[in-house]
Amino acid sequence: MTHPDAETALACLRLARTDGIGPVSYRKLIRTHGSVEAALAMLERGATRISRTIGPLCPRDDALRELERLHAMGGTLLTHGQPGYPALLAALPDAPPVLSVLGDATLLCARMVGIVGGRNASSGGLRMAESLAALLAAHGVHTVSGLARGIDGAAHRGAMTAGRTVAAIAGGLDCPYPPEHAALQAEIARTGAVVTEAALGTVPQARHFPRRNRLIAGLGLGCVVVEAALRSGSLITARMALDYGRTLFAVPGSPLDPRCRGSNDLLRQGAVVTETERDILRELPETIEENDLFGAPPRPVRHNAAPSGGQALAPLRPDPAPPPPAQGDLHEMVEGFLSFTPSPVDDLVRRCQFSTAAVLTVLSEMEIAGTIEFLAGDLVVRRPPPA
Amino acid sequence: MTHPDAETALACLRLARTDGIGPVSYRKLIRTHGSVEAALAMLERGATRISRTIGPLCPRDDALRELERLHAMGGTLLTHGQPGYPALLAALPDAPPVLSVLGDATLLCARMVGIVGGRNASSGGLRMAESLAALLAAHGVHTVSGLARGIDGAAHRGAMTAGRTVAAIAGGLDCPYPPEHAALQAEIARTGAVVTEAALGTVPQARHFPRRNRLIAGLGLGCVVVEAALRSGSLITARMALDYGRTLFAVPGSPLDPRCRGSNDLLRQGAVVTETERDILRELPETIEENDLFGAPPRPVRHNAAPSGGQALAPLRPDPAPPPPAQGDLHEMVEGFLSFTPSPVDDLVRRCQFSTAAVLTVLSEMEIAGTIEFLAGDLVVRRPPPA
Repeated sequence: MTHPDAETALACLRLARTDGIGPVSYRKLIRTHGSVEAALAMLERGATRISRTIGPLCPRDDALRELERLHAMGGTLLTHGQPGYPALLAALPDAPPVLSVLGDATLLCARMVGIVGGRNASSGGLRMAESLAALLAAHGVHTVSGLARGIDGAAHRGAMTAGRTVAAIAGGLDCPYPPEHAALQAEIARTGAVVTEAALGTVPQARHFPRRNRLIAGLGLGCVVVEAALRSGSLITARMALDYGRTLFAVPGSPLDPRCRGSNDLLRQGAVVTETERDILRELPETIEENDLFGAPPRPVRHNAAPSGGQALAPLRPDPAPPPPAQGDLHEMVEGFLSFTPSPVDDLVRRCQFSTAAVLTVLSEMEIAGTIEFLAGDLVVRRPPPA
Repeated sequence: MTHPDAETALACLRLARTDGIGPVSYRKLIRTHGSVEAALAMLERGATRISRTIGPLCPRDDALRELERLHAMGGTLLTHGQPGYPALLAALPDAPPVLSVLGDATLLCARMVGIVGGRNASSGGLRMAESLAALLAAHGVHTVSGLARGIDGAAHRGAMTAGRTVAAIAGGLDCPYPPEHAALQAEIARTGAVVTEAALGTVPQARHFPRRNRLIAGLGLGCVVVEAALRSGSLITARMALDYGRTLFAVPGSPLDPRCRGSNDLLRQGAVVTETERDILRELPETIEENDLFGAPPRPVRHNAAPSGGQALAPLRPDPAPPPPAQGDLHEMVEGFLSFTPSPVDDLVRRCQFSTAAVLTVLSEMEIAGTIEFLAGDLVVRRPPPA
């Protein structure tokens, strides 16, 4: 490892693999100290305030071993700020510090949309996802999805024959999930790309999924939701995409099918009605550079958005619809339950009586905001406020 | 017929039943001459310019016979400007001069929404229509529809048990259409109301349907579209409702079902996403008086509306979507084919190569604008421009 870029990559990896350093604090560290090497040196000397709130630094040998194993698999490490790192992700306030990629890492920089949806999808939903992905691919637009059962798998399959799909996963590249998609993951690695923020050997757990969702939301110029139930994980990805300023698309479905309630609700909130690939192509910028996401200040995460699709042809309706079930309340609830003593995430979920996904999203936002950190062993802890 | 109100009603009926006097010219005549009796007197003397462009005046005896037959059936005649005429219809620039009603005519003044949709509806669509109407009825909101097969029938049935449905029909009250809905019409007349603009004995023809659609659009505070294919008649009703400033609702459906393409397209244009009766109730004014339709200037009929539901949570997308297939072109085409010599409507439809419904809508708008008149025998003629 004598090449200077390799040394930088190693330094990035050591920071990124240190417990308690999230994407936002990673970025802060580098900004404060000027370079990743300088930040690392300061942390090694314990000479920065953050060093009191983080776990022990990831040893150089551990990082080196991960990098060597990754290369041995034929994988690539992309680090934020280095060439090859996708521009759309780099623009995020919480851009992942490092990405591990199997397959063609340049695909991450392609014109791409996320396609997400429920696991127990209807046959119609599966057909929609597969055909949308295939027709987008025919127009040169790639599909990123989360390798889950149902809509995700169908979307990957639709785009894969054209070699235009990227699977974003929650665990390590060597830990395919769900197990029955191991072959699909291998096929995507061969024809497209598989990407994760997680270290090799990471068995995916619930808390890893918000990061996978962020990859889908962040890599795409837009996010297409096909069949999502209320409170489903796809809606979290959709909200992230909106927060990143990406265009949100939703496929309409019968109100009689609960699998469509969440996606229909996105239409209510103003998502683009999507029946064919043309509805998507029409809204996408011609090139990634053309979109206005770069340099835009991060948009605040909004809770309790008033859902009300404006009537284009009718006068504006005077009364906005009442807000959906308060996610803001959950935020407060989570805040209330958290303390400076590490507590298990599961415990928090149980106490909040909300879905795991909802609680994890709130936690993920708090991590991004720098108010909490995840610790090993599924623990979460409040970080001391800046003095 | 000595009662003065009855004489006025008779005069209204004579004007309304005269070939070449549409709703707009009817209104102009009364405004110009101060009262319906004065207008009638002028026309009888041939002393007004319009008398050159209209057919022979409807004889008093004919009108009297219609009125007597209507009363014998237990029906009611409502005339524009007289008590009992529904306020929401009266507010229209092209308010029907007379309405014939079987059943409880006061229902026409109730808080009401139109529910319309395709004739060859899916079982899911039928269930939606029936249950929306029933649940709206449970909240005191009436349903008006067009007594057609499919969605219309289901909507009537849903609201009928609560006695809260109004059937707007194209032909005379004594000419139920479709024939298999004769029993349904009788049942609605018994428990609700049946209304038409047409004279007794009028066998409904294609050209009568725009007027029936106008009744549905005009009587409702909003219009709900459940399953409408592209270019279907329900979309004409929906556009009329928008033109009248009413709120448009559409039930989402799978893009794989062509029966939902038109209703999904309405969502694209900004219709309220409708999954349950709550989506409708939330948008309706508490009372008819509360809505802001009275006194508002008539909104221009818009063609080529740019369909683009705004993204409530995302930045506005810069490029509006391209316009739908040009209806404006059809308008020009019809204009081009029309002449001062009466020509058959069928001929016009054939020459335009558009659907009958589309051509009839354009004609209906031109009639409303006063540029054409329908003549007996399915003929249409251009009217001379004002000198």
